[in-house]
Amino acid sequence: MIYLALNISIRLKSMIRVGVLGGTGYAGVETVRLLCGHPEAEITRIVSQSFEGKKFSDIYENLKGICDIVCSGLDIDDIAAACDVVFTALPHGASKEVIPALYEKGLKIIDLSGDFRYRDVKVYEKWYGQEHTSPELLKESVYGLCELYRDEIPKHRLVGNPGCYTTCSIMGLAPLLLDNAVDTKNIIIDAKSGVTGAGRGLALPNMFCECTETMKAYKIATHRHTSEIEQELSLAAGGEVMVSFTPHLAPMKRGIFATCYANLKEKMTTAQILDIFKKYYGKEQFVRIYEEGTLPEIKHITGSNYVAIGAVVDERLSRVVVVSCIDNLVKGAAGQAVQNMNLICGFDEGLGLKAAGMYL
Amino acid sequence: MIYLALNISIRLKSMIRVGVLGGTGYAGVETVRLLCGHPEAEITRIVSQSFEGKKFSDIYENLKGICDIVCSGLDIDDIAAACDVVFTALPHGASKEVIPALYEKGLKIIDLSGDFRYRDVKVYEKWYGQEHTSPELLKESVYGLCELYRDEIPKHRLVGNPGCYTTCSIMGLAPLLLDNAVDTKNIIIDAKSGVTGAGRGLALPNMFCECTETMKAYKIATHRHTSEIEQELSLAAGGEVMVSFTPHLAPMKRGIFATCYANLKEKMTTAQILDIFKKYYGKEQFVRIYEEGTLPEIKHITGSNYVAIGAVVDERLSRVVVVSCIDNLVKGAAGQAVQNMNLICGFDEGLGLKAAGMYL
Amino acid sequence: MIYLALNISIRLKSMIRVGVLGGTGYAGVETVRLLCGHPEAEITRIVSQSFEGKKFSDIYENLKGICDIVCSGLDIDDIAAACDVVFTALPHGASKEVIPALYEKGLKIIDLSGDFRYRDVKVYEKWYGQEHTSPELLKESVYGLCELYRDEIPKHRLVGNPGCYTTCSIMGLAPLLLDNAVDTKNIIIDAKSGVTGAGRGLALPNMFCECTETMKAYKIATHRHTSEIEQELSLAAGGEVMVSFTPHLAPMKRGIFATCYANLKEKMTTAQILDIFKKYYGKEQFVRIYEEGTLPEIKHITGSNYVAIGAVVDERLSRVVVVSCIDNLVKGAAGQAVQNMNLICGFDEGLGLKAAGMYL
Amino acid sequence: MIYLALNISIRLKSMIRVGVLGGTGYAGVETVRLLCGHPEAEITRIVSQSFEGKKFSDIYENLKGICDIVCSGLDIDDIAAACDVVFTALPHGASKEVIPALYEKGLKIIDLSGDFRYRDVKVYEKWYGQEHTSPELLKESVYGLCELYRDEIPKHRLVGNPGCYTTCSIMGLAPLLLDNAVDTKNIIIDAKSGVTGAGRGLALPNMFCECTETMKAYKIATHRHTSEIEQELSLAAGGEVMVSFTPHLAPMKRGIFATCYANLKEKMTTAQILDIFKKYYGKEQFVRIYEEGTLPEIKHITGSNYVAIGAVVDERLSRVVVVSCIDNLVKGAAGQAVQNMNLICGFDEGLGLKAAGMYL
Repeated sequence: MIYLALNISIRLKSMIRVGVLGGTGYAGVETVRLLCGHPEAEITRIVSQSFEGKKFSDIYENLKGICDIVCSGLDIDDIAAACDVVFTALPHGASKEVIPALYEKGLKIIDLSGDFRYRDVKVYEKWYGQEHTSPELLKESVYGLCELYRDEIPKHRLVGNPGCYTTCSIMGLAPLLLDNAVDTKNIIIDAKSGVTGAGRGLALPNMFCECTETMKAYKIATHRHTSEIEQELSLAAGGEVMVSFTPHLAPMKRGIFATCYANLKEKMTTAQILDIFKKYYGKEQFVRIYEEGTLPEIKHITGSNYVAIGAVVDERLSRVVVVSCIDNLVKGAAGQAVQNMNLICGFDEGLGLKAAGMYL
Repeated sequence: MIYLALNISIRLKSMIRVGVLGGTGYAGVETVRLLCGHPEAEITRIVSQSFEGKKFSDIYENLKGICDIVCSGLDIDDIAAACDVVFTALPHGASKEVIPALYEKGLKIIDLSGDFRYRDVKVYEKWYGQEHTSPELLKESVYGLCELYRDEIPKHRLVGNPGCYTTCSIMGLAPLLLDNAVDTKNIIIDAKSGVTGAGRGLALPNMFCECTETMKAYKIATHRHTSEIEQELSLAAGGEVMVSFTPHLAPMKRGIFATCYANLKEKMTTAQILDIFKKYYGKEQFVRIYEEGTLPEIKHITGSNYVAIGAVVDERLSRVVVVSCIDNLVKGAAGQAVQNMNLICGFDEGLGLKAAGMYL
Repeated sequence: MIYLALNISIRLKSMIRVGVLGGTGYAGVETVRLLCGHPEAEITRIVSQSFEGKKFSDIYENLKGICDIVCSGLDIDDIAAACDVVFTALPHGASKEVIPALYEKGLKIIDLSGDFRYRDVKVYEKWYGQEHTSPELLKESVYGLCELYRDEIPKHRLVGNPGCYTTCSIMGLAPLLLDNAVDTKNIIIDAKSGVTGAGRGLALPNMFCECTETMKAYKIATHRHTSEIEQELSLAAGGEVMVSFTPHLAPMKRGIFATCYANLKEKMTTAQILDIFKKYYGKEQFVRIYEEGTLPEIKHITGSNYVAIGAVVDERLSRVVVVSCIDNLVKGAAGQAVQNMNLICGFDEGLGLKAAGMYL
Repeated sequence: MIYLALNISIRLKSMIRVGVLGGTGYAGVETVRLLCGHPEAEITRIVSQSFEGKKFSDIYENLKGICDIVCSGLDIDDIAAACDVVFTALPHGASKEVIPALYEKGLKIIDLSGDFRYRDVKVYEKWYGQEHTSPELLKESVYGLCELYRDEIPKHRLVGNPGCYTTCSIMGLAPLLLDNAVDTKNIIIDAKSGVTGAGRGLALPNMFCECTETMKAYKIATHRHTSEIEQELSLAAGGEVMVSFTPHLAPMKRGIFATCYANLKEKMTTAQILDIFKKYYGKEQFVRIYEEGTLPEIKHITGSNYVAIGAVVDERLSRVVVVSCIDNLVKGAAGQAVQNMNLICGFDEGLGLKAAGMYL
C-alpha cells in the first residue's frame, strides 16, 4: 500500500503523567508494562512501601532500560504534584485509606482493589468483612467495566476497576440476561484462574511445588467476587440474580476461564445465542465472539486485553454453556485499568492496548 | 513394636498370569507399572502392534530392569495359552473386535475401552456412533465401578472398566442420588482433566507448546462419558437423570477434578451432606471423605488409586457443590482395572494398589 | 512533561510490503506477530502449503481481527508482485529450493533456515548432510547477527538469519575471544532450550505428557548449531575454535539459556570480564549486561528481542562462566529477522521490537 | 508360573522403629512416603517444630489413612525411647545441634543435612561458613553414598547422607577417575535441578509465577555441593580434583540432570567409556547404564531410587560428556537415606525402594 501523506500539525502536546501505587505486585507491574508501551502516558511515580528506594527494573528485570524509575514511598503531596492520574493496585482495604486523600487533590484515580466497585456499601461490608471508611466517595465512583459503562466512566474521576473473575463472568453472561434469554435461577459459574491471580505475596499454596501439576477449588460459595458478579447481573436482568460461583486454581500463570451455565427461557439454538452476543458486543474492539463449533482457549488471549467468548446450547437440556476467557492481569486488571484511563482522559479507548496475545 | 510370629503355612501358590493388550498407550503402561508391583500377578504378555518386537523398557525407560518383556503381536491363541487374565487397553471400537475371541478362550477380561460399559446397546451406539458387534457379550459383562458393584463383579469374566471422567463424577454424585438428597434436574458436572487423558496418540493440541499455560473446554454437551454418567446416576436415582457434563483440558499430566452442582431437595448443611458420603463410602479403602472446611486437590491422589471427595453446601442457593478428584490413569483406568482383577481373581481388593499418592 | 511540538512534514510514505513463507510454524507465527506491531511493515502474503486457503487467525486465534489474511500457496510470481521483503521460515533444505527464485525477482530475503548462514559451503554440507544447491547465492548472503555485522547487512539482499542456540552462544562468547581474554581450547557451551525450539511438527517427544516435568540432552557433539557457533567464534578469535555444545530440552515454551565455560588466559576478575562485554555491547539497544552479583534469567527476556548476559569468574579455577539468555523465537528467530529487515530497509534497527519481556 | 511353596518359619520379628526429624520438609515427607511402603520399618515419631500437634496427613493429604501420626516436638528422651533409627532432615546447621544427643542415646542416625558428610572439618567450615560443633562425631560418621561405601556404612551408627547434586555428579564421574580415564583438570559439571531441591521454605523465587516458564543459574562457583563433589572425586582420582559446578533451577518439581564434561587422557570411544561404567556399576541394582546412542531423561527415574547414566565421546575434542540423572528427593535424599537404613540395619539394600519411576 502506497499513500501520500501531507501532515501538518501544530499542537501543544502534554503527556499524561501517571503514578502507580502498589506497583510491585503483579497487577502493578502489568500496569507498568502496559504504560511503558502507551504513547500518551508517562510514568512519573511508582510507589512501593516494600521496595522504596529500589530501582523498579531491579525488581522486574524485564524492564531494564525500559522503566528504571526508583520506587518511592507513599507521599500524597508528592504524588499529587507529579501525577495527573494514579492507578492504585493496593491490597483490598488499603486502597480506601489512601484514595480519599488523592481524590481531594483532584487526581484521576483508577482503583484496582474491590473498594470502589459497589453500588451498595452494605454489600461491600458484608462480603469484605470490614467497614467501608469512605462511603461518600463510593457514590462518586463508577464501576469500570468499559463495555457496559463506556458512557458513564468519562464523567468520573474515580473508577472502581472490576475484578478479574467478575469481568470474565459478567462479560459472558450479561448479554443473555439483558436479552432476557435465560432463567435467573440456576446460573452457575465455574471459573479457573492462573496463579498470578493469587498475587505476589508469599504463601505456601502458591509455591511452584505446591501448585504445579495439580488443581483445586477454593472459597466455594464464599468468594467476594460473587457479590460483584451478582450486582452487575442483577442490573442486567432487572431483578435479583444469585449465582453459584466456584473459583479454581489451575497450574498456569495467566488467564481466567469461566464456564457459565444457564437454563434457557425457551428453546434456542447456539447460533441464536451467538447472535445475542454479537448484538451487544459486535462493535467492541476487545471482544471476540467465536463462531459456532469453535471455542476460545486461554492462549488465544494471553498477554492481551481481549475477551474471548464462545457458546454451546445443549438442546437436550435446554441449557446454554458459555465459555469466557480473559487474561486476568490484562483485561482482568491492568489492561482494563488502562482502558479506563483512556476513557477518562479522552484518548482512543484502545490506545496502547492492541497488542496481540502471545499464543506461545 | 516387637511381636512374636509363628507362621506355618503350606500352600500351592500360583501367580496369576496376565496379559496387557495395548500396553504401550498411557493406560497400558500404567497397568504394567501397577502390575509390576502386584504380589500375585505376573505379566506374561504385552501386546502392541506398533511396537511388536521391541522391549517394553525401551519404550518406557522407567521400567528398565523391571519390565523388560518384548512386545508381541496380537495372537489370540498365544495369549490364551500364556495368560489367565487380560487387560485390553485398546482404542474404543478395537476392543469389541478382539474381546469375543478372548472370551471364548475362557480368559478373564478387563476392558478399559467404552465397549462393555453399557446396559443398553442403543445408548452405546448412539453416543459412540458405531454399531456394537457383540451385543450378546455386553450382557455377560459387568460395569466395573468397584465401590458400586463389588458384589456383582466377581460373578463375571468380562468387566467393562469405567471411564475416567465417569468414575470421578459418579463417585461424587451417586450417594446424593441414592439418598434422594438432590434434585435430578439441574445437575452440572464441570470436569477438568490432565493431558494424559487424551492418550499418547500424536495430536497437535496435545503438544507441549499448544497446551501448557492454557486451558480449554471441549465436546461441550456431546462427550461420550455423559451417557455413561447418566446411566449410572439414573440407576442410583431410580429414574432418568440427565446432566450437563463439560470436560476441560488443564495443563497437568494426571488427574481429574470434577466440580459437581446439584440443587438440594430440602435444606441441608454441609455436615449432613458429608454424612451421606460417609454412610455410603465410610468403609471403602480407596475413598477419602474430607472434613467440612477442607477440600481435596489433585495432588492428594496423584499416582494413587484413591478417590478424594469434599463438599460445600451453599445455603443461600440451597445447592451443594461436590468436589471429586481421582488420578485418571489409576482410579480412572489402570488402578481400577487392577482392583477389578483383584475382585474377579479372589484377591484382597486393594492388593498392589495401596501406595500413597505423590503430592510432589 | 509538557512540550510544544511543531511538526510539519510532507512525505511520500510507502509501507514495506512483507511476505512470510512458512508462516504457520512457530518462527513464522512469531514473525507475523511482530510484524503486526511494526509501524512500517504491512503483511501482504502468508504462504503455507499445509494451510492454503485457511485464514491465518483461524490457525492462530490470538490474531483474530489482527491478522486475518488467508494463507496462500507457494507462487513465486504472486509473491514477487505482492512483496518487497520476504521472510522464509521453511524447514532447512526447503529454503534453498525457493530462495534462488525469489532472489532473482529482486526481492529482499531474510531466511530463517540454516541454508544461508555459512561462509564455507563444505561446512554446511558436512553438518547438514545434504548438498547445497545454491552455493553461488551463499556468496551473496550475509550472516545476520546484527550486533556483529550491522555494517555489512544493509549491503545485501539475502540475510542468513542466525540460529537460536547460536545467537545466544555467540553473543555470550564473542567479546571474550575478540578481546583475547580466554583460551580457545576447552570452551564448553551447555545450552537449555524451551520446547518451541523443536517446532510445531508432530513428534512424540514434544507431546505435553512426554516433555513436561522432565529434562534431557540430545544430539550431544553432533548438533548442527555447533558448526555455526564455531564459524563465528573462530572469526572472533582469529583462529580455529572448536567447542563442546550440548543442547538440552527444558519444560518451558520459550527461551534459551546458555551456560558458557572458558579458561582465562590470565587472572581476571568478574568486573573485568563484564567490562569487556560493556566495551563491545555498551551501546547496543538489545543487549543487557548484568552487574556483578546479578545474573539473567529467561523470564527477564521472554517475548522480547533482548539478550541478557551475566558472568562470574571462578578465581579458584581461573575460569569464567558466562550466562546468556534470549527468547529463541524472538532474538533467536523472528525478532532478529525483523531487526535484519529494519537494517536492510533503512529503518531504525529497533523499530517494532522494543516491547518489554513478559516476566509473568 | 506355578510353583509349590512349602514355607515353614518360626521367627521373632521386630519391626524397626523409625523417627523422622524435620518430617514436614520435602526431604522429610519423601522419607515418610518411602517408609510407609517399607516392609520392615514402622514410623513411630515424626518431629516437626512448626507443626507440633498436627496430624501429618493434614499437612500432606496424600497420606490420609496411610500416615496419620501426630507430629511431636523435639524431645530427645522421647525419641530415644520410641525409635531405633532416626532420619534427621533438618536444615544445615540444625542437625549438628541435635545429633550428638541422639547419638549418645545409642540411636542409629541418618542425617540428610551437610553436617556429617565431610572428612575434613575445615572444608565444611569453609564452605558452610560456620563452625562445626561436633568435630569428634564427624570422625564417627560415614559418607553414605551406598554404591561407593557399601562395605563401610554398616560399621557406623551415624551416616552423612549425601547431597542431591553431589550424588548425581559423583555417580557420573567417579568411575572415570577411578579408572584414570580422564584428566582431573577441566572437569565441568553443569547441573539442573527441579524446584523441590529448594525446599519448602517460603521464598519468592520459588513461587509458581516466578519460576515456571523460566530457568536460571545460581551460586556459580560458590555452591556448597562443590566441596562435597571435590572431596569424593579427589578420593577417586587419588589426588586433588577441583571442578566447575554450576547449579540451575528448571521448571519441574523433581529431578537432577547433571551434564559432566571431562577431557580424555587418551583416545577412547563411547563404548569404552560405557564399559568403564559397567565395570563399576554393572551389578548395582539402582544404577542403569544406557547403551550407546541412548541417553537418560529425568522422567525415566522420577519418583524412584534409580540413577541413570549415559555418555557420549566427542572424538573431535577428545572429550567425554556424561549425563547423569536422579530424583533429587529419592536417590538424592530420602531414597538413599532408606538405602542407608537398610545397610545399617542388615536388610536387603533395596528393600522398599524398588518401585519403578513414574514416567508420566
